[in-house]
Amino acid sequence: MIENALKPYVIGLDLGGTNSVFGIVDARGEIKATTAIKTQGYNKVEDYVNKAVKALIPIIDAVGGIDNIKAMGIGAPNGNFYSGTIEYAPNLVWAHDCVVPLAQMFSERLGGIPVALTNDANAAALGEMTYGVARGMKNFIDITLGTGVGSGIVVNGQMVYGSDGFAGELGHVTMVRGENGRTCGCGRTGCLEAYCSATGVARTAREFLAVSDAPSLLRELEPAQITSLEVSLAAAKGDELAKSVYDFTGEMLGAACADFATFCSPEAFVFFGGLTKAGDLIMKPIEDSYNRHVMNIFRGKPKFLVSTLDGSSAAVLGASAVGWEL
Amino acid sequence: MIENALKPYVIGLDLGGTNSVFGIVDARGEIKATTAIKTQGYNKVEDYVNKAVKALIPIIDAVGGIDNIKAMGIGAPNGNFYSGTIEYAPNLVWAHDCVVPLAQMFSERLGGIPVALTNDANAAALGEMTYGVARGMKNFIDITLGTGVGSGIVVNGQMVYGSDGFAGELGHVTMVRGENGRTCGCGRTGCLEAYCSATGVARTAREFLAVSDAPSLLRELEPAQITSLEVSLAAAKGDELAKSVYDFTGEMLGAACADFATFCSPEAFVFFGGLTKAGDLIMKPIEDSYNRHVMNIFRGKPKFLVSTLDGSSAAVLGASAVGWEL
Repeated sequence: MIENALKPYVIGLDLGGTNSVFGIVDARGEIKATTAIKTQGYNKVEDYVNKAVKALIPIIDAVGGIDNIKAMGIGAPNGNFYSGTIEYAPNLVWAHDCVVPLAQMFSERLGGIPVALTNDANAAALGEMTYGVARGMKNFIDITLGTGVGSGIVVNGQMVYGSDGFAGELGHVTMVRGENGRTCGCGRTGCLEAYCSATGVARTAREFLAVSDAPSLLRELEPAQITSLEVSLAAAKGDELAKSVYDFTGEMLGAACADFATFCSPEAFVFFGGLTKAGDLIMKPIEDSYNRHVMNIFRGKPKFLVSTLDGSSAAVLGASAVGWEL
Repeated sequence: MIENALKPYVIGLDLGGTNSVFGIVDARGEIKATTAIKTQGYNKVEDYVNKAVKALIPIIDAVGGIDNIKAMGIGAPNGNFYSGTIEYAPNLVWAHDCVVPLAQMFSERLGGIPVALTNDANAAALGEMTYGVARGMKNFIDITLGTGVGSGIVVNGQMVYGSDGFAGELGHVTMVRGENGRTCGCGRTGCLEAYCSATGVARTAREFLAVSDAPSLLRELEPAQITSLEVSLAAAKGDELAKSVYDFTGEMLGAACADFATFCSPEAFVFFGGLTKAGDLIMKPIEDSYNRHVMNIFRGKPKFLVSTLDGSSAAVLGASAVGWEL
C-alpha cells in the first residue's frame, strides 16, 4: 500500500447539467485518462453513481489501480464543500428536491479514498490556483462568465466557503437597485448575473437594438436568435453596436470589481468562460471601469487576467484541484 | 526571562485622531493599567513615540516590567498590518504625507517585543473575536457605525487583509450608482458611508425635513445643529420622522449586508459604534431589509448582533487583540 501523500493521481469529476466528465490528473495538471457519462437519465442518485463507477474502473486500472489514487474532487452545481453534498440543484433530476451525499457515496464505492466536492465556480478558482494563471497567489477572485456568472474567492491562500459552504456568489450582488433592475434567475432583480452572463449580454444587445436606429449586423437576425456568440461574432467584425454591448458589460463588471476590492483587495481578478473569448473587447472596458470606480488605495493595483486553462479540460482540472487539497 | 508564550500581558494602543489610549490587558480581556497621551501636537513621529514610551514606562512597571509583556497591538487609522506602518493618514500631522513604520519604532523602544498594527476597524473585529460576541466564530463581519463606516472581515478564523493590507473597506461599496449618489469623504459618490455614518444619518434627517411637512422634534433645531445624536434622542421620544431616518438607514445597511453575504456567507454581522445605541430602532430595519434583499440560500441564516464591548475600552481591547495574534 502506497502512503497517501505519495499517491500520484487524483480523480476530477466535472459534473455538469448534461455531461459528467471524469479525468485522472497528476500533480502537474496532466490528464492521464478520461471518460464521461450522461448526468441525466437516472431516477435515483444510486443509479448515477453505479454508472459512474462502472465507467471509472477501466481508467483507474489504466493508471495502475485505486492504490495510485490519492483522492477524488468533484465540481458540481449547488455543491457544498463542508458536507460533501449537492443540495437542491434545480437542474439535476436526482438532486433537485433533496440533499445528496455524493462525496460519501463515491468514497464508499472507491475503496474509501477521500472525496471532496464544491460548486463549479469554486472548483474553477482552485484549478486556476493549482495549475493556471493564479499559481502562487494568496488573494484573488475567479469570475466565470458563462450561462450564469459564478465566482470563487481565495483569501490568505484558502477558498472562501463561508459559514455554510455557499460563499462566493458574486453573480448575485445587486448592481441595479429598485424597480429598473432586470429579473434574475435567482428570483431577485438587478443582479450582476442578469447583465453579465451570456443571456444577459444577449438581452443587452436586444435592448440596444430596440432603442436605437444604428446599423448593425445583428439586425439581420430575429431578436430571439441573438445570442452572446452572435454578439461576439459581430463585434469581431467591427460592428459598433455589438462593441457597445461589450462596453456596457465591461463597465458593469468593472464597477462590481471595484466593490469586490473593498472586501478582499485581491492581487488579481481572473476571468473564465465564453465571454472572455472577446479578449480586449471585454477586458479593457472592465479594467478601465474598475479604475474609474474604485477607491484611490485600490486603483491600478490588481491584475485583470484571462484564464489560460483550456476550456474543455479546465473544469476537470478544477475538480481535481479540490481533491489535491485533501 | 519568561517564555514569550507564557507572558501574561499585551499592550493595546488605540491611536485616535485626538487621543492615544494605552492599556495593559490580560488574556481574559481585563485591563490592568491604562494611560493616555495626546495624538497631535508633535511635528515628528519620533516625538510622539518618545512621549508615548515615557507614559508607558510606569504602567509597564506596575505589571512587573517588560518581561511580563508578550507583545503590543496598535489600532490606527490607515494602519497596514503587513508592513506595520501608518500610510498617508489624513488626520495625523506626523503621518499625513508619508509612511510611518510605527510598529518597528515601538518594538525598538520596548526591548524588542513584537508589535503589530492594523486599522481601527480591523482591531475592533479582532477585539470582538477575542473578547466579545464573536468569540468562537470563524466567519463574521464587524461593521463600525461611527464618524465613518468601517469594517473588519474574518474568514476561516483569520482577518482579511488582502493583497496589500487594506482589505475590509466595506463603507465604500457603492449603494447609489450614478449622478444621484451622495458625495463621500473618499472623493467618490454613493458610498455606504455617505448614508450610514453619523454624518450620513444627520444628512438624511435634514433631507427628510426639507422634503416633508411632517411634524418633528428636529424642527426645533437649526438644520446645521442636527446630529445623529439629536436624531437618536428624537427617535427615542417616539418622533416619527426620526424613526423614518433609522428605517432608511437600516434599509440600506441591510441591502449592503445582503451583498456582503454573497461574498463570505458570515455566521454573524456584528455592529459597533454610536448608531447601535438606538437598539431595535436600527437593528430591526437592518435585519428585515437583509432578509428581503438577500438570495434565498442566505435568508434567515446570519445573526445580527450588537457589540457587547464597553465603548470606552473596546478600542484598546481591539488593539490588544492584534497583539495576542502574534
